[in-house]
Amino acid sequence: MRAELISVGTELLLGEIVDTNAAYLSQKLAEIGVDVYHRHTVGDNLSRLAEAVGLALSRSDVIILSGGLGPTEDDLTRQAIAEATGRVLLRSPQAVDRLREFFASRGRVPTDNNLRQADAPEGAVLLDNPVGTAPGILLEHDCRQIYALPGPPTELHRMFTDQVLPRLEETSDLQGQRLYCHSLLLADIGESNAAAILAELIHDQSDPSIALYASPAQVRVRLATKAADAQTAHHRLQVAAEDIRCLLGDHVFGTNEDTMESVIGQLLRQRHATLSVAESCTGGLIASRITDVPGSSDYFLGGTVAYANEIKQALLGVPGSVLDTYGAVSAECAQAMAEGARTSFGTDFAAATTGIAGPDGGTPEKPVGLVYIAVADETDTHVEQHNWPGTREQFKRRVSQIALNTLRKRILGTT
Amino acid sequence: MRAELISVGTELLLGEIVDTNAAYLSQKLAEIGVDVYHRHTVGDNLSRLAEAVGLALSRSDVIILSGGLGPTEDDLTRQAIAEATGRVLLRSPQAVDRLREFFASRGRVPTDNNLRQADAPEGAVLLDNPVGTAPGILLEHDCRQIYALPGPPTELHRMFTDQVLPRLEETSDLQGQRLYCHSLLLADIGESNAAAILAELIHDQSDPSIALYASPAQVRVRLATKAADAQTAHHRLQVAAEDIRCLLGDHVFGTNEDTMESVIGQLLRQRHATLSVAESCTGGLIASRITDVPGSSDYFLGGTVAYANEIKQALLGVPGSVLDTYGAVSAECAQAMAEGARTSFGTDFAAATTGIAGPDGGTPEKPVGLVYIAVADETDTHVEQHNWPGTREQFKRRVSQIALNTLRKRILGTT
Repeated sequence: MRAELISVGTELLLGEIVDTNAAYLSQKLAEIGVDVYHRHTVGDNLSRLAEAVGLALSRSDVIILSGGLGPTEDDLTRQAIAEATGRVLLRSPQAVDRLREFFASRGRVPTDNNLRQADAPEGAVLLDNPVGTAPGILLEHDCRQIYALPGPPTELHRMFTDQVLPRLEETSDLQGQRLYCHSLLLADIGESNAAAILAELIHDQSDPSIALYASPAQVRVRLATKAADAQTAHHRLQVAAEDIRCLLGDHVFGTNEDTMESVIGQLLRQRHATLSVAESCTGGLIASRITDVPGSSDYFLGGTVAYANEIKQALLGVPGSVLDTYGAVSAECAQAMAEGARTSFGTDFAAATTGIAGPDGGTPEKPVGLVYIAVADETDTHVEQHNWPGTREQFKRRVSQIALNTLRKRILGTT
Repeated sequence: MRAELISVGTELLLGEIVDTNAAYLSQKLAEIGVDVYHRHTVGDNLSRLAEAVGLALSRSDVIILSGGLGPTEDDLTRQAIAEATGRVLLRSPQAVDRLREFFASRGRVPTDNNLRQADAPEGAVLLDNPVGTAPGILLEHDCRQIYALPGPPTELHRMFTDQVLPRLEETSDLQGQRLYCHSLLLADIGESNAAAILAELIHDQSDPSIALYASPAQVRVRLATKAADAQTAHHRLQVAAEDIRCLLGDHVFGTNEDTMESVIGQLLRQRHATLSVAESCTGGLIASRITDVPGSSDYFLGGTVAYANEIKQALLGVPGSVLDTYGAVSAECAQAMAEGARTSFGTDFAAATTGIAGPDGGTPEKPVGLVYIAVADETDTHVEQHNWPGTREQFKRRVSQIALNTLRKRILGTT
């Protein structure tokens, strides 16, 4: 089965946004063994869009359009599919009702423009959008499947996973085989170091295939194998994963869809332990990441963002003498912050960060990128010094990751 | 002049990397007024790649290929251009010399594969690559310009800026004109409502052009005009921006590269005022956004993430009676949190959030998505109730945006 992707939007052609949807869809299709031979990006122009759909219909079994389902006159995906397939647009009464309900739940009334989102080519099935207003479209035409999904990634991911993927898996011609993947997530090691450690393994082994992907503050080792059944695949993947764990040890913090914050949540939950944080240079990012996990209120009591020195003293009990003698960016201050948070929040664990995010504020002794991380528990407080020069955003992201990883190892008792 | 982009590489079609080159080239071409109507991604397959080049030659004046210029047999861009234009590949002796020098400078000798990078279709000009081994290609064919650039972004950016851009500017039909843009950023209004308010303006006016782009919790109104000089362009853009501000009033919170948090930083800095936050359901995201702004330590003293009720009481002084009578998700609690933060941090302003992020924890009376936002200053505390059902991530993002916008209006004295 051959799929073709069409990304819709003048903002893409103007380079105002990067097309992450195309990469997401490509990856998901590869995972189920559906080949993507063409990807096309077209602006908000009816004739060029209809032409692209027509070209795709001439050479692909599945066409997935993303974007162009919004409420404005620039949103032309519905019309383009209708035109390319010689169908009329019909307004779905059920979809109109759903739109009215959606707006009513927010105390609003849909405009005429909004109701255009209930239009679809004759014969199409509307795909429910649980997280936005634009329903998706599935139209079967001349033995082809045409899908249209909304452009916002949250909506597209959700609808693709729940509604498109199961349909494609049902109709794909993998002859019983499909691609199975397993990922190991690494912290505190770079892509090239990980590649060097795994070099021999990667060289000697072709199935499962091993690939490394770096993203900010994290490396993903992706294992993939094609198999007729899940059990065979999982066995192969587990054997390979075990080899990798032996080589990389504690750097492996999770698998697949885990995040550092979800892993920490699981560890704390298993131990019925609680957590608080005291943040200076990460400015709330660690607390925000921890609370991204559903149910985190079970173990996370809260945190203090102590940006000013007087707040470090008043709310976290950092002694004035520590600030005077060692400064706010010091191992001593990080330790006092972690211990202060642990006391004031009354938690089993507390993590603290203090450093120089930049771009200003660095000195020769304490340059931009210097950071101290502390984790306190009932027995002790562990403090680390790191140096991560980079942009402010990179710095906050990396420090939050390394602080959470230090916390993880402390909970596990390996640091 | 019309350009078409072809991104080459099976790794793109597998979703293993995101195509940032396409966005980069699109943006640079838009800036000099070259229209991009089509973008195409093709894998490492000679016939499909040659076909894509042929299609592009049939409808575009300039074709820019990125990727597929490496030394391996999978790198087929050179052959595809040769095939689509009916030319043979020739090896350039100068390019062979350059490759030998490049390798010699690293103490190595090029392999036969490496020397393939010196091949180009007959009649092509080789473009020097100062930061890598693969030279680029420029071939003029039937009044079309075909460019091929290497895929690594560092190499592509450098060669595009130094060697492609000047040639395009020379041959483009802009007659000295280029594109100038100005964006207005909107909060607390959806894309369709904004479009409805601006409908007449959009309809009546073609220069500057007006386009709306929605991103999470924000709408961008983008004005664009082609002009021979910056002054003419800026005048046109300012007149149109003024019309839009008249219609959208307080919804306009910033321009161009502003963010809500940077705008708030400017407002606080102008007033020599300080800020603290008290967050429950946003879990630190507001503090993290505020501290994303360089220099935010000048006005942001800190915040309390009070996830547990006992923390709301102990650290923010929320009375137990408020929690007992109204619950943690209530206007009364939000008000007490904001006032408590303002007192304990000693700031001029304080913002607070309390709500139900979900997916669990909702009740019929207090459903997932319900949130109270409070902003306290020396005169008063303003409290708002909102309802934003959605994913946990959407909820946190939207609530942080609306809370910051409420704060913005409070600082300006318009709420």
